[in-house]
Amino acid sequence: MSQGILFIISAPSGTGKSSLIEGLLKTKSLYNIKVSISHTTRIMRPGESHGKHYYFISKKEFRIMIKQESFLEYAKVFNNYYGTSRQYIEKMLLSGIDVFLDIDWQGASQIRYKMPKSKSIFLLPPSKDELYKRLRKRGQDSDTVIAKRMEKAVDEMNHYSEYDYLIINDDFQKAINDLKTIVFAEHLCAFHQKNKYNLLISQLLQR
Amino acid sequence: MSQGILFIISAPSGTGKSSLIEGLLKTKSLYNIKVSISHTTRIMRPGESHGKHYYFISKKEFRIMIKQESFLEYAKVFNNYYGTSRQYIEKMLLSGIDVFLDIDWQGASQIRYKMPKSKSIFLLPPSKDELYKRLRKRGQDSDTVIAKRMEKAVDEMNHYSEYDYLIINDDFQKAINDLKTIVFAEHLCAFHQKNKYNLLISQLLQR
Repeated sequence: MSQGILFIISAPSGTGKSSLIEGLLKTKSLYNIKVSISHTTRIMRPGESHGKHYYFISKKEFRIMIKQESFLEYAKVFNNYYGTSRQYIEKMLLSGIDVFLDIDWQGASQIRYKMPKSKSIFLLPPSKDELYKRLRKRGQDSDTVIAKRMEKAVDEMNHYSEYDYLIINDDFQKAINDLKTIVFAEHLCAFHQKNKYNLLISQLLQR
Repeated sequence: MSQGILFIISAPSGTGKSSLIEGLLKTKSLYNIKVSISHTTRIMRPGESHGKHYYFISKKEFRIMIKQESFLEYAKVFNNYYGTSRQYIEKMLLSGIDVFLDIDWQGASQIRYKMPKSKSIFLLPPSKDELYKRLRKRGQDSDTVIAKRMEKAVDEMNHYSEYDYLIINDDFQKAINDLKTIVFAEHLCAFHQKNKYNLLISQLLQR
């Protein structure tokens, strides 16, 4: 059976990444696509459930997993840890599932090194104005807060060329089609087709 | 303006490569796709024209071009030379045209080395029986002739894993869609998008 492909997806805040991924998952597709679920030490919130939003574990368990090198990447955000379990990802890929891993450029660097066959996609907003609009939308924030968000967004965007693919989220439906195109094309790569058509190829090469 | 992409396409005889390329060119596409036209020393046949089927030149002119390293690849077939002009390819790519270069695995090796940004696609037939049927179709040939064709086809197919993409030509329309998917996805690569959205990116990265 053919393996799944690990797709890293990054974007500055306000680019519509979550909506795009959701839209992609809803699309009727030949391939089985899932979003990666991280392990975290933060407290589960109302409406969340274990194994659906996150794998909620204790700080002690998380530290043990770090020691055992169980994470492909992890980070500490405020006072909590977040990480992607290697075993979890490898299990999904082996069962033919394509995994979308929504992380920032730093997480992406770690993943790229440990999972060299992974592919990475960076999403950009269609204009600076549009980005600004979306960053402001989050309520009545001071100019300082918004400026900080923009600065963080620009920091993230500075790493766009480290990615394999670049999608401009201008037209929502087109951006989803772009994601689909990338998934389909990656499955047409010789490496993946070789596994899928293993039997046919050995028959064709028989003298 | 964004550059075109050079696509190398190879297949054993009898896979339907020419029909597929023709079918792709007929498809309404966002991108400007053309088939590469080779230089050759063979005599022009009735119905052919210079610059449409081939650039017909003399053996003397061809040898001068070889000396000047004007070819990305060339080969001698029977008593005639066939080659792909570097200047011709580069001109097309610079003007934003995607070029499909229909050559064998040996030509592909030469091109890959000289044009590292090129992408290569290998086409396979859906079964050995189907391949055999198509190789026989060419008229009343002896078993020996057909066996030699099959041997040549197997030789060619042995190089499939040197290619970036692998398409199984089972369903004609699906195979054309696969080609389209590859062209679209390659244009979504960061390298090409970076050129296309040059201005947007510099605006976004401005602090």
